[in-house]
Amino acid sequence: MNTSELSIFLPYLYLAWSDDILTKKEFETLSVFISSRDWLKPEEKEFLLSKINLAVPPSRSELSDWKKTIERQIASSQKITTLFDLIVSLSDKDDTIITYKPQFEELENNLGLLSEEVINIFKESPKTITSEYGTVTEFDVAKLTSILDGEEAPIINKVKEVISRPEFEYETSTDIFVYRKKVLEWCKILADENLGNMAYPKKYGGGENIADYFAIMETLSYHDLSLVIKFGVQFGLWGMSIQSLGTEKHYEKYLRDVGTLDLPGCFAMTETHHGSNVKGIETTATYNHEDKTFTIHTPHENAQKEYIGNAANHGRMATVFAKLIIDGHDFGVNAFIVPLRDVEMNVLEGITIKDCGLKMGLNGVDNGIIQFHNVVIPKENMLDRFAQINEKGEFESPIPSDNRRFFTMLGTLVGGRIGIPRSALAAAKSGLTIAIKYSDTRRQFGPEGGSEVPILNYRMHQRRLFPYLAKVYAIHFGLQYVTQRFIHKKEEEMQEIEALAAGMKAYSTWNTRDTLQESREACGGKGYLSENRIDALKNDTEIYTTFEGDNTVLMQLVAKNRLSEFRKEFGEMNAFGIINYVYDQAKTVISQKNPFATRNTDEAHLLDREFHLNAFQYREKQILNSAAKRLKKLIDGGLDSYDAFNVVQHQMIEVAQAYLERVVLEQFYTAIENTKDENCKAILTELCQLYALSQIEKNKGWFLEDGYMEGVKTKAIRKMVNQLCWDLRPNAVALVDAFSIPESCLAAPIITEQ
Amino acid sequence: MNTSELSIFLPYLYLAWSDDILTKKEFETLSVFISSRDWLKPEEKEFLLSKINLAVPPSRSELSDWKKTIERQIASSQKITTLFDLIVSLSDKDDTIITYKPQFEELENNLGLLSEEVINIFKESPKTITSEYGTVTEFDVAKLTSILDGEEAPIINKVKEVISRPEFEYETSTDIFVYRKKVLEWCKILADENLGNMAYPKKYGGGENIADYFAIMETLSYHDLSLVIKFGVQFGLWGMSIQSLGTEKHYEKYLRDVGTLDLPGCFAMTETHHGSNVKGIETTATYNHEDKTFTIHTPHENAQKEYIGNAANHGRMATVFAKLIIDGHDFGVNAFIVPLRDVEMNVLEGITIKDCGLKMGLNGVDNGIIQFHNVVIPKENMLDRFAQINEKGEFESPIPSDNRRFFTMLGTLVGGRIGIPRSALAAAKSGLTIAIKYSDTRRQFGPEGGSEVPILNYRMHQRRLFPYLAKVYAIHFGLQYVTQRFIHKKEEEMQEIEALAAGMKAYSTWNTRDTLQESREACGGKGYLSENRIDALKNDTEIYTTFEGDNTVLMQLVAKNRLSEFRKEFGEMNAFGIINYVYDQAKTVISQKNPFATRNTDEAHLLDREFHLNAFQYREKQILNSAAKRLKKLIDGGLDSYDAFNVVQHQMIEVAQAYLERVVLEQFYTAIENTKDENCKAILTELCQLYALSQIEKNKGWFLEDGYMEGVKTKAIRKMVNQLCWDLRPNAVALVDAFSIPESCLAAPIITEQ
Repeated sequence: MNTSELSIFLPYLYLAWSDDILTKKEFETLSVFISSRDWLKPEEKEFLLSKINLAVPPSRSELSDWKKTIERQIASSQKITTLFDLIVSLSDKDDTIITYKPQFEELENNLGLLSEEVINIFKESPKTITSEYGTVTEFDVAKLTSILDGEEAPIINKVKEVISRPEFEYETSTDIFVYRKKVLEWCKILADENLGNMAYPKKYGGGENIADYFAIMETLSYHDLSLVIKFGVQFGLWGMSIQSLGTEKHYEKYLRDVGTLDLPGCFAMTETHHGSNVKGIETTATYNHEDKTFTIHTPHENAQKEYIGNAANHGRMATVFAKLIIDGHDFGVNAFIVPLRDVEMNVLEGITIKDCGLKMGLNGVDNGIIQFHNVVIPKENMLDRFAQINEKGEFESPIPSDNRRFFTMLGTLVGGRIGIPRSALAAAKSGLTIAIKYSDTRRQFGPEGGSEVPILNYRMHQRRLFPYLAKVYAIHFGLQYVTQRFIHKKEEEMQEIEALAAGMKAYSTWNTRDTLQESREACGGKGYLSENRIDALKNDTEIYTTFEGDNTVLMQLVAKNRLSEFRKEFGEMNAFGIINYVYDQAKTVISQKNPFATRNTDEAHLLDREFHLNAFQYREKQILNSAAKRLKKLIDGGLDSYDAFNVVQHQMIEVAQAYLERVVLEQFYTAIENTKDENCKAILTELCQLYALSQIEKNKGWFLEDGYMEGVKTKAIRKMVNQLCWDLRPNAVALVDAFSIPESCLAAPIITEQ
Repeated sequence: MNTSELSIFLPYLYLAWSDDILTKKEFETLSVFISSRDWLKPEEKEFLLSKINLAVPPSRSELSDWKKTIERQIASSQKITTLFDLIVSLSDKDDTIITYKPQFEELENNLGLLSEEVINIFKESPKTITSEYGTVTEFDVAKLTSILDGEEAPIINKVKEVISRPEFEYETSTDIFVYRKKVLEWCKILADENLGNMAYPKKYGGGENIADYFAIMETLSYHDLSLVIKFGVQFGLWGMSIQSLGTEKHYEKYLRDVGTLDLPGCFAMTETHHGSNVKGIETTATYNHEDKTFTIHTPHENAQKEYIGNAANHGRMATVFAKLIIDGHDFGVNAFIVPLRDVEMNVLEGITIKDCGLKMGLNGVDNGIIQFHNVVIPKENMLDRFAQINEKGEFESPIPSDNRRFFTMLGTLVGGRIGIPRSALAAAKSGLTIAIKYSDTRRQFGPEGGSEVPILNYRMHQRRLFPYLAKVYAIHFGLQYVTQRFIHKKEEEMQEIEALAAGMKAYSTWNTRDTLQESREACGGKGYLSENRIDALKNDTEIYTTFEGDNTVLMQLVAKNRLSEFRKEFGEMNAFGIINYVYDQAKTVISQKNPFATRNTDEAHLLDREFHLNAFQYREKQILNSAAKRLKKLIDGGLDSYDAFNVVQHQMIEVAQAYLERVVLEQFYTAIENTKDENCKAILTELCQLYALSQIEKNKGWFLEDGYMEGVKTKAIRKMVNQLCWDLRPNAVALVDAFSIPESCLAAPIITEQ
């Protein structure tokens, strides 16, 4: 080929043979095109057709020459941006070629070639926006850490120091007995550091500091989660059950030894047939008048205590929940201290203990099954804060209803529903740290001819991780709030706080599940290797959505609490109040649901705090309102209320979800308000905007159904979420650095070996 | 209390003390109410107030008496449905009481009591709709199994027979070396049964039956998934790489021994720094003219072969992908057979093998890292189907472009993208079977006074599991279709089939991830115990979303393929065609987007096949159209095409998703059309409706944004999804029984020990 008429075909010939876009059919399209050009001479056509004969491909070096020719041509002129520009240039700017433009454009169309895209194939190392992007830190990381840690910084730092010691190196044995032993040793070290008894009265060696106790649970969760759960079982469940359900004589006798781990124990509530519905447990504690003892008994196999932490190997006693029977009468569920093993760790007579065996995770915790065969314990072993047996052998309680007494007892144990979501949050932070730091250095693909690009520069990768980063920050402030509410609770707030804690437990643990799933996938094959720790984080926290209350069941409870609050709110309104409420609602509708607002896509509006808060509050109210109405309609229509609640279960989950999201958003904005440092404030605001908008995006179906937003607005929100992800990317590494997780805890070679 | 005026307060007194709804504040409400009744005498007030004194609760037996009184009253009359009915009845139908109705209703409001709900508390064992529901089978399970198995039934039954033998009892050791050994033994049994070489030419001992090979992969997946992957590495990746990339001399030399497992081998493509972007691998194969050999070399640690199955312990050879270098020129990626170990299993000189160590799952597969230090192999070890080195030491290939040659090579290996999603599907079926059968027997909670209810009767539980049940059936038919397309492929269809297989691989493996997650949570604590097998199913399939192509990357490829098809469709249209297309689109809009259609909530319409197909097709076209337009706009606006593709990555995922959902729905409906048995047809139709509507529900944000549906319709769809779940419940157990998974494979004590 030496005529310009022929060289203009070079790009097509090259593309036909080189890339994997053109198929046999497209070769045919090209040959029809060549054959039917009246401006080509027969011998030119013949020559060109010979070059697209599938049976006789060009040689590899010929192909390479073509490419070089094209590349030189493109390099010679800045102005070549389309395929036709290239053709004109190859023709030595032959004027007649210009007139062929429509023909060539039709050809490109028929071949499905995007002309600008093709030109890139020939450009050397193009500097694209995507490849030029990277990590920049625009705020003081240490300052952000101190905002997160708040007043708990000293205890957090102490725990970090302890778990960074050499003796806390991770156990890698797959032998669960080796692992359990190691976890027990770690617990002993923590006890020696006076971390276990932090919440107990000072009188019994404790720190009387519940806030510190929660901070310890959370910080320990950067390390092994079996350790956290074992720690929680011993010092939280076992110790706190004595403290919350027992009286002075029990504290005196046990608390100090529990706190030093000299007396390892269990919390034996769940039975094989009763997990969520613990009210229905069947283990019995029968009072014996003659010798003032109780007989603890497992009436059948499905009433055995199951999943009991510390039971399989290390527990010497247990707080056992059992139905109290006196003279054949059932006095409801009460709690009793029952010895399981002697000091030599022999299992006592009448006790059968089985090992729950291998689990998906938390294999450093020795969960077991306990059966009691007419085990006799002294009367003083009844934890008698809420009910006693008097000298005459009669039952006495300031709370006459068995139900209410049981729920009061459970209420005192609600702390677990704060410790677990905080532990879950720490695990999510670890997973995100690993995924984001890895993605910042892992390179894969890149612009044609350019070097490969960190995968964190890909929009989809950002989309996968950054909404979780924002949500983790949001939940952090949400859980700080729940903790504060719990610590400073007044009696009349207990129901609300219990519901809030139950809800946040579900919200945080589900978020951890999702965050770790995405983190694993974001790390690809490396994420699958146990050494990189997402394995343990993910499998250990898997059960967090189930224990301390199954999340779905908890969400139903939260929703029922919201409904009952809602009814009271309406009930307590007098006529004037109702008018005001209706007026308020109308105002909301007028100000937020007018066509200007529902279609407002201004950037300032979409990023506006008031818009976010209004949308979340509106959604919460409307969903609650609609669930209440629907329930009433079903029951008024003659449905049994049990059936009616079943019909709306799905809606109830949304009631709880909308409530929790509103609380979390408010707390995030409150935390931002309280932030003094301008750079920290700016980055937190960006995160909060991403949290708000990505939740709205997730719920856009609802907002559109309701008419609160129109499609034009939800589309703009999707774009804004993309934009916020892109904008956050430079600071992403710093934002996980601000979690300040000890290196020795992260320990993943994919982020440490660089 | 003996006057009727006082007994009417009994329900309030009882409720105040018994349940956990009334708080301190509500006690006050009640006492204000009592104090301000002008129809109560002072001593009556005093008496009543003494009964709600928080400091002096009633005794437990008093409370019990109150309850009995109320229960007797309610039992005496069918007509008592509200709290006020009860009060009237307690007053001996005192006429004056009737006039107090507004007062009491206000009180109930203020206390937030839902009157009908309260009455239920006092009813004995109410027979509710929820508790009376249960398992009923309305179709012939064996017939449905035969519809699922189709022509592959004989091979499926053979595999089931083999894996049900005693020697296939699951390995429970946590020692990965014990586990790997067991898996190898299992593979050997399968090889002896001529299952491994099923796809190889008969000439070399094979069955020449690729359809059977896929059915084997899928059926084996009811058993241990390490076995499946080990099997796939040996007979699929290793054996098929020889068959697809090699020539007769290689078949002759290796295939028979590969098929009998006398020659265990590896497929060494992925490198530490190149997973998704395999085109960029850096291992070199340098041709030595003098002795006609290649030197295989790992230039640096990040170019080592990683995650290679069969490498750590058992592989004796590997197909190694490396850049071919001749005289300093790079001829792109080619494949070579490289020995790793001698017959005594000693690692050969120049080879370094490391163990990938513990993984989240698949620990029965010995994944390893391989480094080559100038390893010399003979010229004949080059797999030379697509490129050869001639006698003069020159490179020759019928495919001149290195890129295209490489992708052609990869294209021959696409079978893995059919085997993996089918294996994933089987794992999802196992998980659902365990979760649904357990939920059918697990009872928790129930109506007041009634017995506990199987958790599968709860709407939320149905919502969690049944859409996945429907989707698993849908994907089953989708994957049957892809398999058929692959087996009967024509060359010009290859690109489409490759994209389809890649997409279905992502679609199925993500679905398995989600299905197993939900199955685990649905089984609560029992789901966490390894013995119940969701652990292994979940953790083993976790990597399915990454290997054989990272799902997110595959979805981008699928979307690019759809875009290029879309461009060609437009390109090839002449003016007349375009007019027709526009007319078609307009017709769609007229017929489907008129106010009647967008707001149509008729049950018949919502369940209608045409509505489903139209909605899925419409969505697919619109999303594709909009992505194409957006891309063009970005590129026309001057963005580099690489950057432009980055901007739309999120939309690209939706393009692929909408395409796959449409294909799957069509195949499901096609399968239903071909079903003769009426009962099977009916149940499959119900499942298909649930699949269609739950996908629409999931995408309702999009449909609302687009205006294809209005809120009234998407709300009706949500209700219909609930209804379909409820309607499916009786047949749910039979529907998982129809998967016909061997008992010995399911093996979960929660469903076998009953």
